Amino acid sequence: MGGDHGPSVVVPGVAQAVAGLSGVRFLLHGDEALLNAELAKSPAARAVCEVRHTDKSIAMDEKPAQAMRRGKGSSLWNAVEAIREGEAAACVSAGNTGALMAISKLILRMGANLERPAIVASWPTLRGVSAVLDVGANVESDADQLVEFAIMGAAFHHAVHGSERPTVGLLNVGSEDQKGHEEVREAHAILKDANLEFDYRGFVEGTDIAKGTVDVVVTDGFTGNVALKTAEGLARFFSNEIKTTLTSGPLAMLGALIASGALKKMRRRLDPGRVNGGPLLGLNGIVVKSHGGADALGFASAIRVAVDLARSDFSAEIDRNLKRLTKTAPPAAQADADESKAEGASGAEGQGVSE
Amino acid sequence: MGGDHGPSVVVPGVAQAVAGLSGVRFLLHGDEALLNAELAKSPAARAVCEVRHTDKSIAMDEKPAQAMRRGKGSSLWNAVEAIREGEAAACVSAGNTGALMAISKLILRMGANLERPAIVASWPTLRGVSAVLDVGANVESDADQLVEFAIMGAAFHHAVHGSERPTVGLLNVGSEDQKGHEEVREAHAILKDANLEFDYRGFVEGTDIAKGTVDVVVTDGFTGNVALKTAEGLARFFSNEIKTTLTSGPLAMLGALIASGALKKMRRRLDPGRVNGGPLLGLNGIVVKSHGGADALGFASAIRVAVDLARSDFSAEIDRNLKRLTKTAPPAAQADADESKAEGASGAEGQGVSE
Repeated sequence: MGGDHGPSVVVPGVAQAVAGLSGVRFLLHGDEALLNAELAKSPAARAVCEVRHTDKSIAMDEKPAQAMRRGKGSSLWNAVEAIREGEAAACVSAGNTGALMAISKLILRMGANLERPAIVASWPTLRGVSAVLDVGANVESDADQLVEFAIMGAAFHHAVHGSERPTVGLLNVGSEDQKGHEEVREAHAILKDANLEFDYRGFVEGTDIAKGTVDVVVTDGFTGNVALKTAEGLARFFSNEIKTTLTSGPLAMLGALIASGALKKMRRRLDPGRVNGGPLLGLNGIVVKSHGGADALGFASAIRVAVDLARSDFSAEIDRNLKRLTKTAPPAAQADADESKAEGASGAEGQGVSE
Repeated sequence: MGGDHGPSVVVPGVAQAVAGLSGVRFLLHGDEALLNAELAKSPAARAVCEVRHTDKSIAMDEKPAQAMRRGKGSSLWNAVEAIREGEAAACVSAGNTGALMAISKLILRMGANLERPAIVASWPTLRGVSAVLDVGANVESDADQLVEFAIMGAAFHHAVHGSERPTVGLLNVGSEDQKGHEEVREAHAILKDANLEFDYRGFVEGTDIAKGTVDVVVTDGFTGNVALKTAEGLARFFSNEIKTTLTSGPLAMLGALIASGALKKMRRRLDPGRVNGGPLLGLNGIVVKSHGGADALGFASAIRVAVDLARSDFSAEIDRNLKRLTKTAPPAAQADADESKAEGASGAEGQGVSE
């Protein structure tokens, strides 16, 4: 029932997704009258869907705390609960992000040995698609959490974007070891010495995201959210400029008409809908958030992300890396790290740390 | 002597800048043989320039700490020192950013009642040009520093981009009061109740930057640097995509040829060189950093920023607002704020604060 369009996007989205998938079945949680009306129009979706009726749903602007209190029995709640009950392998929702996060944490709980969840974004780059996380589950992250994000992001990229041994970078304001604040420098020190199932490439900068320098870009949820939304804003600004430019006069319009095939192809390549689907990583179960404004193509893409994750050994890979991490950094080393953290960091070279 | 091109960009940059300015004179610090050779080619620049010879210069990759120790007598050092000596009203450099910041702080010191400097970026938007700060002078900022950035950014936008009463927003991951980490919520509380010479509009998100929702976007140096560099990377990605698209086949090339006038105009509008010039705000003197890779047009733009600042009552405006701030927030209120800071913040609604 979630998102800007509800069942009128979800059902056609299912139909588009199953065209390229076999053996996947869907439980649709929500108003059965609305859902059945959409299913009647789409035999492909009807063949793989079962409707679970509820007349309760969570509004897009409902506060997460309120959604947690009042959300029981809503379509969103039931979809997440179906994972815990073993009825579903994953949940996809275009609904209220804060509510989805809060209810998923409540029902599914954090995965073993993981501290915090993270939302991961798939980002189109010059070289393909990179995973950027966290883009909004947290407002700050300490070094250990950044290390967890690296491990979860690598497992995600492997499962969904197919990299054999993902490359991972830590987002910072420069590439030298002494750059940045305490949290990133500490996470860098841990990752540099850990022997994990991915290639840690050190610090990367904002420019590296679109370049695709690494498969996985790790950052705290505040910085990641701002970077993602800044990029979204800029993408809209550019589209707008191109449109204005190519309709600015008869010659420009003629040129645009002639080049329209190529321009359409470009727009498709840059379309965020093509890489829609941001999983909430770190929970005991797979929950994928679709953009609220996504169309059927975008919703289908989010479904494919959920299926790829469910069919991968994503959780086992995270477990293995968390265990390797404990081996490389024994309790003594951890205590040292905590101590140096308590001492505070010295402001290095014109980039002072103010505390 | 700084930047990727040294005098071969600086001197033509001066010539371009003076075409639109009157009464501005320049001291050129650096190798006189190189500078005179460039001046010989440019009568417009020669008429307004005086060369101050030094054969010492700071390398683009020199560490700031080293530049501070060994930099005395270098072209960068002498240019900043000329401000303190009252010989120059402002300094413009395309040199090593870290060194420029470190040496400027050492020679000029912080302005009265200001805690930390900030680097401000002028950002092209749908509505004009916004100022975004800090984009790299600091790696973290507390609430009081964010408030200072708001005051400095507003005075900058007023002086350089001509807004009568700038609108100011605080960059966050959402627009509700309880969103974000402690520092932004505290800065929000201070700015909301302060009666300053600008319109504080509350929280803005990443998407608002390119939209131009506010004239001044305030954030810590880590987030600001990542946002700016992410945008730079994305801009290059888009240019690349457009170029690839419009040379992808004979029809696309023909279309591009026909629309080329309009496309050229668009590229000029989006050209970061047009809005080049990032002042280091907060010091006792005006220091403007030009992009190291800027061409003459870009360097001229940085010069114009310095002239606009030098001819404005920028410092007086900052002083007035700092005084108003003290009036609105008496010592008692400040102490309360510090106390609530020490208590830590509660994780609000699925966006937990981890400490």
